[in-house]
Amino acid sequence: MSLITVGTMAFDAIETPFGKTDRIVGGSATYVAYSASNFIKPVQQISIIGNDFPSEELFELRARGVQLDGVEVVPDKPSFFWKGRYHEDMNSRDTLVTDLNVLADFDPKVPESYQGAEFLMLGNLLPKLQLNVIQELRTRPRFIAMDTMNFWMETAMPDLKIVLRYVDMLMVNDSEARQLSGQFSLVKAAKSIMEMGPKYLIIKKGEHGALFFHEDQVFFAPALPLEDVFDPTGAGDTFAGGFMGFLAKTGDISFANMKRGIIVGSALASFCVEKFGPTRLKEVNQDDINGRVRLFQDLVNFDIELS
Amino acid sequence: MSLITVGTMAFDAIETPFGKTDRIVGGSATYVAYSASNFIKPVQQISIIGNDFPSEELFELRARGVQLDGVEVVPDKPSFFWKGRYHEDMNSRDTLVTDLNVLADFDPKVPESYQGAEFLMLGNLLPKLQLNVIQELRTRPRFIAMDTMNFWMETAMPDLKIVLRYVDMLMVNDSEARQLSGQFSLVKAAKSIMEMGPKYLIIKKGEHGALFFHEDQVFFAPALPLEDVFDPTGAGDTFAGGFMGFLAKTGDISFANMKRGIIVGSALASFCVEKFGPTRLKEVNQDDINGRVRLFQDLVNFDIELS
Repeated sequence: MSLITVGTMAFDAIETPFGKTDRIVGGSATYVAYSASNFIKPVQQISIIGNDFPSEELFELRARGVQLDGVEVVPDKPSFFWKGRYHEDMNSRDTLVTDLNVLADFDPKVPESYQGAEFLMLGNLLPKLQLNVIQELRTRPRFIAMDTMNFWMETAMPDLKIVLRYVDMLMVNDSEARQLSGQFSLVKAAKSIMEMGPKYLIIKKGEHGALFFHEDQVFFAPALPLEDVFDPTGAGDTFAGGFMGFLAKTGDISFANMKRGIIVGSALASFCVEKFGPTRLKEVNQDDINGRVRLFQDLVNFDIELS
Repeated sequence: MSLITVGTMAFDAIETPFGKTDRIVGGSATYVAYSASNFIKPVQQISIIGNDFPSEELFELRARGVQLDGVEVVPDKPSFFWKGRYHEDMNSRDTLVTDLNVLADFDPKVPESYQGAEFLMLGNLLPKLQLNVIQELRTRPRFIAMDTMNFWMETAMPDLKIVLRYVDMLMVNDSEARQLSGQFSLVKAAKSIMEMGPKYLIIKKGEHGALFFHEDQVFFAPALPLEDVFDPTGAGDTFAGGFMGFLAKTGDISFANMKRGIIVGSALASFCVEKFGPTRLKEVNQDDINGRVRLFQDLVNFDIELS
């Protein structure tokens, strides 16, 4: 099985209550790749970078089984850059700088070697570009998941609604789910969004965990209670990468297996937030991941006999 | 086994985005009693009411096995009255009116017939009064839980710190846990609070569920995702009543059984919010409760084999 992932590879500068960092490597596809490569090879990356993206990072991704044929390198422009500052609750942030740079020219192409992939993760991008990728694939993947954001709901809602009809799963956060559906109740929002196309929906609530909806079923995965959330940047993409990597590894897209994938994704995300950028993700191995999954089992496991 | 519950029996007037209600019956001890009486008889109530508290309500409580020997009736004053308005997220509210009335004179006494109770639930009250109840009991209950609020942290912190040394469990919401400990991280807040006395701590997060801490163990119970939270008034007390009622019924104060109690309490709370006041609580039976517990099992249950 293989997994195509489409998104940004970029630089971030981050301020949190715990510290700040200058330009470090980030981007949705970077986090997805680091996370998914724990489970599946190859991860087939589609992105765009400038002349400033560190070659050591590309080397490390390749060493983890990430194919970079679909990563366009623009020789005369810098990579996408984002600077932001998190508030104390770490669930909200202010964007200080957005330099699109190479991202302004992004026109994702699917390399011939990626054709036939069974899983597709569409990172948060202009909906038109997400649709282009789907349409470039000669065989529809077994399972397509996508992310999006409020900005596209405000500027490209018609296109977004078209893409939604082509995907199996939408992953958004709670405020995005509310904006997309016009419903405050997340249960009502979920029903409304599933009528727009996706049969599966994950609503991410940051430190409050994630809700997973499919037809009349609902599953809840908590976030691991951590002493400190050091830097939440990339946690959502890391979650998506772990989830999709796990599905691709097991080849099982039943509801029960997706629940497992959500726990695995949550475990990866719980590592991600422990250090700035993808630093911590590069350190963890399968034993670490298994240990974290066991913590999730302990966290929610209960047995009760009904009288 | 018996359970003593101490707290208010009162009138509330409530505004939510879904509607408003004039003076209806409320009060922490009222909710605890309706909830706990699903599991244990007698529930031994200690409270104070005025000449206006409806006798049908007292009759209904008695019919459910709630003893009222400890409920003082003041003939020439009205009952405690609270009026509040909830914001759209239902996790925050403004207090519009607080008329203490009889509550200003509350000096809870433990009736002789309550001596020897094995479980004690101290509702949110002036800490000095909570301490008085503990000291009036000739035999220390096996398990004492208490609630409190920000107001007492601001006006009676020294007394509050004394009571904390006498109880087994504290139940507070997330903002109260942060204020009491001075820690933003709930994990750090929990460690700090457990050093103040309680060996067990429940942090309630409203629609985001509840965290349960004991030594190095942590358990998380989600709130049931509901289409509408109609009125959250009393949900925390209903949770406490379900939890303590279940512990008293089973007589088992192991960590594993407390986890069950938290699920049972969450199930009861999920009914409470469906209608104004304790209305919905009066309607549910054991089958309804079991059905709700099953929903919680489905909500968080997953199986995963680690490779």
